[in-house]
Amino acid sequence: MSVAIWAKRRVPRAESPRLRPRVAPTELTRIDFTEIVPDPVPFLGQAAYIQLEFFESLAKAVATAPDLVSKEGLSSAAGIALRKHHELIAELRRLGAEPAEVMAPFAPATDRFRLATLGADWHELLLGIHITSGMLDDYFARLADGLPAELGTRVRGILGESGAAVVIEQELAAAIAADETLDDRLALWGRRLASVTAHIGTALGADVEPVFTELIAAHTRRMDALGLTA
Amino acid sequence: MSVAIWAKRRVPRAESPRLRPRVAPTELTRIDFTEIVPDPVPFLGQAAYIQLEFFESLAKAVATAPDLVSKEGLSSAAGIALRKHHELIAELRRLGAEPAEVMAPFAPATDRFRLATLGADWHELLLGIHITSGMLDDYFARLADGLPAELGTRVRGILGESGAAVVIEQELAAAIAADETLDDRLALWGRRLASVTAHIGTALGADVEPVFTELIAAHTRRMDALGLTA
Repeated sequence: MSVAIWAKRRVPRAESPRLRPRVAPTELTRIDFTEIVPDPVPFLGQAAYIQLEFFESLAKAVATAPDLVSKEGLSSAAGIALRKHHELIAELRRLGAEPAEVMAPFAPATDRFRLATLGADWHELLLGIHITSGMLDDYFARLADGLPAELGTRVRGILGESGAAVVIEQELAAAIAADETLDDRLALWGRRLASVTAHIGTALGADVEPVFTELIAAHTRRMDALGLTA
Repeated sequence: MSVAIWAKRRVPRAESPRLRPRVAPTELTRIDFTEIVPDPVPFLGQAAYIQLEFFESLAKAVATAPDLVSKEGLSSAAGIALRKHHELIAELRRLGAEPAEVMAPFAPATDRFRLATLGADWHELLLGIHITSGMLDDYFARLADGLPAELGTRVRGILGESGAAVVIEQELAAAIAADETLDDRLALWGRRLASVTAHIGTALGADVEPVFTELIAAHTRRMDALGLTA
C-alpha cells in the first residue's frame, strides 16, 4: 500500500519556540505530525477506500456470523464503517474531487492488504478487522493533524468513532472465553496482523515511520484487552 | 418462506358502509388489506430479517463490482438497506422484543430464498436484489396497513425509501445499454425471480394471494423501465 505520495511533504519548521509544543523535547524518537502536510485529496481518497474495505470485511463477518445475535451486532459495526466511508467521500466531494477517481490508485494494494488480513475463519476475520482498523484509523487520525484545521478536526471526528471496535471486541472476548484453544491461535494471528500492517509504514520513509511505535503500543493495549499476548 | 403465522388473522368486517372505502366496489379481485391484522412483532421480525438479507446481497454486489464508480454507488444502496433493517429493529425494541429471537424463525427460509435469487453473475445478482426487494417491500408496505396506525405509517415510511432501487436501476440500465446480449438473459432471469418471489404468496392462503396480482403489475413496470419483457 503506497501512502508515500502525500506523506513526505513538509511545511518549513518555525525556528521560534512554540507556546504549546506538541512534542516534549525529551521524546527524541517522536515526531511532530503537524510538520507533515498531507495533500487532502489523496489523503481522503486513501482513508475512504480503506473504510470501504473494512466495510466489505464486516459485511463478510455479518454474512458468516455463527448466530443471529452476532449477526445483528456486526451489522451495526458494518454500518459504522460504511458511514465513515461515506463521510470521507462527502469531504472529497466538498473539495470538488471525484471519489472513484481519487480512490482508484489505492485500490490494488488495499485489496491485497485486505486479502492478507482476512484470516482462516470467522474469529480470525474479526481480529483482522479489529487490529488493522485500530492501527490504520489511529494512523490516519494522527496524520490528519497536518490537514487544514477544520478539515483535520472533522476527519479526526469521523475516524474516532469507536462503536464498531466496541462490538467486535465484545464478540471476540465472548468467543475467547467460550473456547480455551482460541487464545493461542488468535495471539499468533494478532502478531502477524500487526506486522503486516506495520509493514505499510516502511513504504513511508523515516519521517513517518516513528508513528508506528505509537501504533504498536496501542495495538498492544488492544491485544491485552482481549487477554492476548501481543 | 412462511409468513402465514401472522397473515391470516382478521378483524371482524364492519357491515355499515365506510366513508372512505379503500377498495372500489368494482375491483372485485382486490382485497382490503386493513382487514388483515399482522401481529406487529413477527411482522417486524420478518421484514427486518429480509432487509438484512438484501443488505448482505448488496454488500456482495459492492465487493464484486466491476469498477469503483459502481462500487461506490452500490455502497450507498447497501447503506440504505442496512438503515431499513436497523429502523425495523428499533421498532421491535420499542415493543420490548429481542430482535434476534424474533427473526430466528424466519432465517432458514429467507436464507434459502436469498440463495435462490443470487443469480449466476454480478448483473443477475443486481436484478435479483431489484426484483425481490421491489416486490417484498411493496408487499410488507401493503400489509403494514393493518398495523396500529402510527406504527403502520412509520413502517411504510421505512420501506418506502427508494434510493437503493434508483441506484440499482441505473447500474442495470447502463449495463444493458452497453451489452446487447444482456437483455434476453436478464428478461428470462427476471421472470424466474418474479415466479420464485410470487411463490411465497401461495403459502399465505387465498386471503392474501390477490395482492400478488398487484405486485406482479409493479414488477412488470419495473422490468419495462429496464426495457425487459416481463
